[in-house]
Amino acid sequence: MQVNKSDLLRRLKKIEGQVRGVQKMIEEDRYCMDILVQLAAIKSATHNIGLAILEGHTKRCVSNAIRSGDGEQAINEMMEVLRSFVK
Amino acid sequence: MQVNKSDLLRRLKKIEGQVRGVQKMIEEDRYCMDILVQLAAIKSATHNIGLAILEGHTKRCVSNAIRSGDGEQAINEMMEVLRSFVK
Amino acid sequence: MQVNKSDLLRRLKKIEGQVRGVQKMIEEDRYCMDILVQLAAIKSATHNIGLAILEGHTKRCVSNAIRSGDGEQAINEMMEVLRSFVK
Amino acid sequence: MQVNKSDLLRRLKKIEGQVRGVQKMIEEDRYCMDILVQLAAIKSATHNIGLAILEGHTKRCVSNAIRSGDGEQAINEMMEVLRSFVK
Repeated sequence: MQVNKSDLLRRLKKIEGQVRGVQKMIEEDRYCMDILVQLAAIKSATHNIGLAILEGHTKRCVSNAIRSGDGEQAINEMMEVLRSFVK
Repeated sequence: MQVNKSDLLRRLKKIEGQVRGVQKMIEEDRYCMDILVQLAAIKSATHNIGLAILEGHTKRCVSNAIRSGDGEQAINEMMEVLRSFVK
Repeated sequence: MQVNKSDLLRRLKKIEGQVRGVQKMIEEDRYCMDILVQLAAIKSATHNIGLAILEGHTKRCVSNAIRSGDGEQAINEMMEVLRSFVK
Repeated sequence: MQVNKSDLLRRLKKIEGQVRGVQKMIEEDRYCMDILVQLAAIKSATHNIGLAILEGHTKRCVSNAIRSGDGEQAINEMMEVLRSFVK
């Protein structure tokens, strides 16, 4: 899992930089539509990281739960979080 | 506009903190679903800031463009950025 | 506006057909993932029609309101509906 | 599964009626923002049906695949369709 973990951290570092970039744009009174384009990139990157984490969770935790007979509960929890993530 | 600007900066500072919080959660191997809940909050906060910026842009820039006869172009640009923000 | 109106009606007729197609797929116990692909197409087409209507609304009603001094109220209403459309 | 199936069909029938309702609103030149509110309801209902189908698919097909050793492939397919559904 180390590779995946470092990949997630790299992507989150990039998002952190983008969020600081937007702060700077606002401080400098940059054009609203350019700021909105940056916010779209942050939202999209956050969305993609969330789906990558959901995929890993399904392949490990949910799969293990299903194999040990606790699938129903694990899938209910996964769906509840997914519903709030993509509402 | 200063109040609004400082409000946006405050909200972006909070998002920056949340993004760092998620990095820490990943480093500490915290439970995937708890991480996804945090990512949902970041995505939602970014979405709301984007719509607030869109509202300000429409009330100022687009309104001014409409009053000076350049509304069509300003609305086309606004719609193009909105489409990528909410795709 | 007639062209635009007939274009919207044509697209809505297509969506109506897609919704009936999904009903048929469910009645015939078709594969879940194929049904989800169709629902994705319906959601996306509905989203695009909504944005087209928002664009027309902004170019006509909102622009007229701005020119006659009622822009603030028109933009507030537009933003409220947009927020529920893209939540 | 019959109950669930009839529930899905009932919800899709309702969406079909809403889509026809929007066509009628457009033909009658009803107010754009009222039309957008209806489109928001259609989009939201379609989204919720899609997630209900995803949940059923995960509890049945994906769970069976995991138990018989084909989980990886089933989850990859599920994630691919989910990504296009919530993009």
